[in-house]
Amino acid sequence: MSAFHEETIVALATAQGISAIAVIRLSGKNAIEITQKCFSGKNLNAQRSHTIHFGTLHDGEKIIDEVLVSIFKEPNSFTKENCAEISCHGSPVIVKEIIKVLLKNGARLAEPGEFTKRAFLSGRFDLAQAEAVADLINAETDNARQAALNQMRGGFSKEIDHLREELIHFASLIELELDFGEEDVEFAKRDDLKKLIYRIQSFLQSLIASFDQGNVIKNGIPTVIAGKPNAGKSTLLNTLLNEERAIVSEIPGTTRDVIEDEMVLGGINFRFTDTAGLRETQDVIEAMGVERTRDRMKKASLIIYLFDLSQTTLDEIATEEQTLQRLGIPYIKTGNKVDKADPKFVDVLKGHDFIFISASHKTNITELKDKILSTFQVKTVKTGDVLVTNLRHYQNLIQTNEALDRVLHGMDTGVTGDFLAMDIRQSLHYLGEITGTITSDDLLANIFSKFCIGK
Amino acid sequence: MSAFHEETIVALATAQGISAIAVIRLSGKNAIEITQKCFSGKNLNAQRSHTIHFGTLHDGEKIIDEVLVSIFKEPNSFTKENCAEISCHGSPVIVKEIIKVLLKNGARLAEPGEFTKRAFLSGRFDLAQAEAVADLINAETDNARQAALNQMRGGFSKEIDHLREELIHFASLIELELDFGEEDVEFAKRDDLKKLIYRIQSFLQSLIASFDQGNVIKNGIPTVIAGKPNAGKSTLLNTLLNEERAIVSEIPGTTRDVIEDEMVLGGINFRFTDTAGLRETQDVIEAMGVERTRDRMKKASLIIYLFDLSQTTLDEIATEEQTLQRLGIPYIKTGNKVDKADPKFVDVLKGHDFIFISASHKTNITELKDKILSTFQVKTVKTGDVLVTNLRHYQNLIQTNEALDRVLHGMDTGVTGDFLAMDIRQSLHYLGEITGTITSDDLLANIFSKFCIGK
Repeated sequence: MSAFHEETIVALATAQGISAIAVIRLSGKNAIEITQKCFSGKNLNAQRSHTIHFGTLHDGEKIIDEVLVSIFKEPNSFTKENCAEISCHGSPVIVKEIIKVLLKNGARLAEPGEFTKRAFLSGRFDLAQAEAVADLINAETDNARQAALNQMRGGFSKEIDHLREELIHFASLIELELDFGEEDVEFAKRDDLKKLIYRIQSFLQSLIASFDQGNVIKNGIPTVIAGKPNAGKSTLLNTLLNEERAIVSEIPGTTRDVIEDEMVLGGINFRFTDTAGLRETQDVIEAMGVERTRDRMKKASLIIYLFDLSQTTLDEIATEEQTLQRLGIPYIKTGNKVDKADPKFVDVLKGHDFIFISASHKTNITELKDKILSTFQVKTVKTGDVLVTNLRHYQNLIQTNEALDRVLHGMDTGVTGDFLAMDIRQSLHYLGEITGTITSDDLLANIFSKFCIGK
Repeated sequence: MSAFHEETIVALATAQGISAIAVIRLSGKNAIEITQKCFSGKNLNAQRSHTIHFGTLHDGEKIIDEVLVSIFKEPNSFTKENCAEISCHGSPVIVKEIIKVLLKNGARLAEPGEFTKRAFLSGRFDLAQAEAVADLINAETDNARQAALNQMRGGFSKEIDHLREELIHFASLIELELDFGEEDVEFAKRDDLKKLIYRIQSFLQSLIASFDQGNVIKNGIPTVIAGKPNAGKSTLLNTLLNEERAIVSEIPGTTRDVIEDEMVLGGINFRFTDTAGLRETQDVIEAMGVERTRDRMKKASLIIYLFDLSQTTLDEIATEEQTLQRLGIPYIKTGNKVDKADPKFVDVLKGHDFIFISASHKTNITELKDKILSTFQVKTVKTGDVLVTNLRHYQNLIQTNEALDRVLHGMDTGVTGDFLAMDIRQSLHYLGEITGTITSDDLLANIFSKFCIGK
């Protein structure tokens, strides 16, 4: 892995669109020199790192814009390479002209995630931290932001590397035993190795256990509103979504493009899956039977099951509840149209964990939301909390844990040192892949291609 | 007009959306202190202007993000006030959290254009230059960008201010004459005044004349494709638009949201107006007659009139051409479906300034485009070219010119000094409004409310 890149890359680093300013970023050996070729105002190379310089950006005689250029000198930049950031007026025409002239002068367009990839390759941070950069940018809730930030700032990286070093120590002792062949020496004390593995497994297990919460925080909860035709499913969905949308902050520039069918509640994103289907439910169910709804429900992590209190019977409720229980997915029994229901019937249902609402009159919606939230008791993520949110890390942690299980089992059954060494090496491999100590071009390509350009 | 603002304003300065970085900008007396309250890393106040500092942005114990803070100290900033720019990860959640904590610590949300308004009020530049900032950001073609940049960099501002000072000199001499009442003195030599007015008017007229081109460059050319039903209007529109869209640059981040029915040709934006109507033309015309089309055509600056060569007759062409001539708008006679036309008929039309095309087979589309361009002979705008692109400036220039006409006429007919002085003062007023020497709260509010927030 070479931290030194001959090629200087360039990309727009800010979002596309018309705005007050846009920032174009360069990184690479000649980042400052290439910028200088199109810049009038100062000799940028003679300036100190972390300084800002006003001037004009031009293509030959043509002045493109008045800009501010920020200079970062290696190794004191994000990529540890020479970097320049050109802050220009936020017009797509200007951005295009500036990038064009930088390309003409020797830069090339950056690939997605290439700045962060260079930061990783230069040792600015490990792979788990690099991945957290993308998670941070894509965070949709404050909890997701905090979890990603904690991971970017080190998270479990240091601890994993530390445990890995201890394991390497044992592995090398065991491999040394192998060199002595049949002399039956034991450099690596088996009891100490066991203690170390217990310690590592305890740490791994706490990380693995955190994934349930981490995954919910990062990816949200796929939620389905189910129920018979005319139970009021679309009305409830609209009521829930509209209420949350109205709460959206009024700080300009922070309103995300409204994503259909998402609701942030208590810092968690509830995604109403397949709601296009849901909205057509009445027809679909009539035509295709209930099978389709069942399929959708199986994929959800939460089901809000809606009964029309003015139509349903105790028998029907009992039947539906049996089906829900078989699915094994958390569900909330919701009685809709409470205003049209027979009060006696409602009384009978009380004490059976029902929420009574009227979706159209917006009655008891807060109670329903509280119930949704209490079904997923996600605590607010705090600075420093370590949560596994990345599926790749989660899978590697499980694989490491399994390899260590094999080591323990091997010691208990008295397998030879070479089998022990093989399993230890395997656990080291999985552990090393998390932080990128062990890596491959395919893995890196796969990870960084998911980044946006300019990052 | 006070250049000093107690209140510190804050806004997102980059475009909304998920991106590598976002920049939040503060300006005002306490911009750096307010940033410091949420920043860990360095004492920002102790740093030099135009330097960049790494640290964390936090809300109490909670770390929001790792950021770079750029410091600009008064008067060396865009607004001439203390400024800070916070470069954070480009997540709307992070932007929102950071702005929230800055508001909590004493900043307030900036109004649209408030940064530029402060730059104007502090004397960073005059009103015409401030208006050009918005034009620069909104420039849709490279020509429009260059025209706006030239205006922002001074354009006619200095010259107007210079001529205005000379006029003020004469005005004061004439007003001095008035003080002497009936003594019949003449401090202001009438011949010199005439010469000055001729000079000013010559300058004004060249600016006024430049508006035709400037307006086309800034606002594009409203274009209509007209013709009988089934002449192939929609097909031609799609052919023109699709070809240009395919040419759109592949530099990421510079592709504007595709605007329906716009085509940039030779640096000019051709806007196909009311094309929704055009696309339904066949039905509309059948139902409502041709009156509607005529209305649309009257509002255009260019008409591409399409004849179906396989259907039309010489009589019909003659009739349509008479109508087109009466409109007094540039038009291009375009013979469509040339592949299906009688070659003899086509031969007859040659020499009558026809373009023969096949919209569906994309035949001779380049010829048509050349014809469109040559109808508007717009030269490429170069660095330094002065063009009036702003309707407000154009109207003020005309009003100034008219007031000066009255001064000249007054001198010729020997009106008294007080009438001369009145007309000179009026011309000074109109001239002063262009660069903002004379201004009102209403005018400023009207101008800056059209800016985007963060600028």
